[in-house]
Amino acid sequence: MVKTIDWKDNSVILIDQTKLPDEELYLKISDYRELADAIKKLKIRGAPAIGIAGAFGVCLGANQSRIEKYDAFKKELEVIIQELAATRPTAVNLFWALDRMRAVLKNNRDMPTIKKLLLDEAFRILEEDKKICRKIGEHGAALLKDGDTVLTHCNTGALATGDFGTALGTVYTAVEQGKKISVFADETRPLLQGARLTTWELKKANIDVTLICDSMAAFVMKKGWVDCVMLGADRIAANGDTANKIGTYNLAVLAKFHQIPFYVVAPTSTIDLNINSGKDIPIEERAAEEITFGFGKRTAPENIKVYNPAFDVTPFELITEIVTEEGIFRAPF
Amino acid sequence: MVKTIDWKDNSVILIDQTKLPDEELYLKISDYRELADAIKKLKIRGAPAIGIAGAFGVCLGANQSRIEKYDAFKKELEVIIQELAATRPTAVNLFWALDRMRAVLKNNRDMPTIKKLLLDEAFRILEEDKKICRKIGEHGAALLKDGDTVLTHCNTGALATGDFGTALGTVYTAVEQGKKISVFADETRPLLQGARLTTWELKKANIDVTLICDSMAAFVMKKGWVDCVMLGADRIAANGDTANKIGTYNLAVLAKFHQIPFYVVAPTSTIDLNINSGKDIPIEERAAEEITFGFGKRTAPENIKVYNPAFDVTPFELITEIVTEEGIFRAPF
Repeated sequence: MVKTIDWKDNSVILIDQTKLPDEELYLKISDYRELADAIKKLKIRGAPAIGIAGAFGVCLGANQSRIEKYDAFKKELEVIIQELAATRPTAVNLFWALDRMRAVLKNNRDMPTIKKLLLDEAFRILEEDKKICRKIGEHGAALLKDGDTVLTHCNTGALATGDFGTALGTVYTAVEQGKKISVFADETRPLLQGARLTTWELKKANIDVTLICDSMAAFVMKKGWVDCVMLGADRIAANGDTANKIGTYNLAVLAKFHQIPFYVVAPTSTIDLNINSGKDIPIEERAAEEITFGFGKRTAPENIKVYNPAFDVTPFELITEIVTEEGIFRAPF
Repeated sequence: MVKTIDWKDNSVILIDQTKLPDEELYLKISDYRELADAIKKLKIRGAPAIGIAGAFGVCLGANQSRIEKYDAFKKELEVIIQELAATRPTAVNLFWALDRMRAVLKNNRDMPTIKKLLLDEAFRILEEDKKICRKIGEHGAALLKDGDTVLTHCNTGALATGDFGTALGTVYTAVEQGKKISVFADETRPLLQGARLTTWELKKANIDVTLICDSMAAFVMKKGWVDCVMLGADRIAANGDTANKIGTYNLAVLAKFHQIPFYVVAPTSTIDLNINSGKDIPIEERAAEEITFGFGKRTAPENIKVYNPAFDVTPFELITEIVTEEGIFRAPF
């Protein structure tokens, strides 16, 4: 299993996901600004993984600080935390992890130990994520029968978490249990996380995977080739409305129409009880060039108008179940 | 308006659509085999346009023939017609146009005039297509109100026909009538006809167009930004089931869910009364590399399994109206 993020020699080690599948390149980052930039540029992505990255980012910032007095140090780190929080607006796991780091900072005024305590907390978030992945996998695998075919979107596997993933973790667990599971991977335009990352890691794990374009999912469902849709979440509102990679809502409508179960698989840290419904979730819009110039080649005329939301919101009514480490829920909560 | 296909100096002149929007390159083709290859490689595409191309292809073959006796000539041309017919299996306009050429061949045994009669018929098909586009535009424009936003898929404009198109022709006509019309263009993976061709020609015509990825259509509909879906067809069965560019069925399901009218716009030559329903329409599957290596760059691991149907079938129940040059119909016929 690929190690998406780790900490070594006072640095964050991460696999540069923008280079996959061409190149397996590991970055060693010791500057929190460089880490913030890596999150922005999606060198690391996936809601749980960017939570972990954010926590380690705070540790980098703490190590870079030259300040010796607690109050000034705390103030400096708060600026760093806000800089890390500003990298991506939609996934809530990042804010959740940064809040945990903030609490450590607030509750410990002893400068000699605080940097170690921050690092301990970041490692705890990583280790917890590993356990959470396994528990989610167990709960989710109960939904999969031997011989099932799962359609998934974006990447929710080892590359999105500290362990083997959420929705894909469920597939890995079912396969470990001896079930034969096949996967259809949506390529996931514009950044092709499905084509580049999901097929790459499933192939490595010898799991049967077929790549399709996002627009083919409907036809594949109509042919009766899909037993369920399983995908992740970037933020789940209190009522169960779920923000996830653009194209998720599309699949939810299609699954409803074809009477196929639609499962959202995510840790409880993805649930944001401060937000009542999906309409309050901020949706990141990204640069037009991701669509018009995404492959080192211009694929649309210059200066064309583009709408490029990175996420969409699926209303809870279209979600069959939400699978978390604490069990399986039916919205609204 | 761009001239997608023309005949000059005993050659077919066509704009190489695989080079757009980067380059406006016109090919001069005098060998029917080269024309067949151009159709296969989608240098020319769009159901009506490949019908016209097929007809002129027969003229090229006739000019290349050295045979002077009618029976042998007819036999040779039949082989050429079959070679042209084998380029793409789904769009029926190609077979319809080739059948018209075959009829000319059958009904005229006078060798000195037959090549001219074949060319006359090809020009007639081109000229008829121009008139058909205009009539379709008039019928279709009646469905568009001032201020409407149309979501479209693939390319159904000047680049797909002998004139200004079918679904896009409807938009052009409505704009000519003084209505303000905006367009959302699906990029249309894998070959990006929407991104490369539709935005290119709408921008040239100063029509407001916004490019989105195919997976964003659902979210855009949910926001209430789409008044109707208008797109073309490659083959319409007798019951109204419609084969069209992959992703069309996806949009039909989404339109139904969001209660948005879904219009198929196509000439009657697209209707194949020999086929009862969509399940009998042959669906072309194309090479995996269109998805995994489509932009001069590998975007998925090597040797990954891929499913790449070029078309899908939309059942007639999901089609609000079918707009043709003869008027507006509601399936089943």
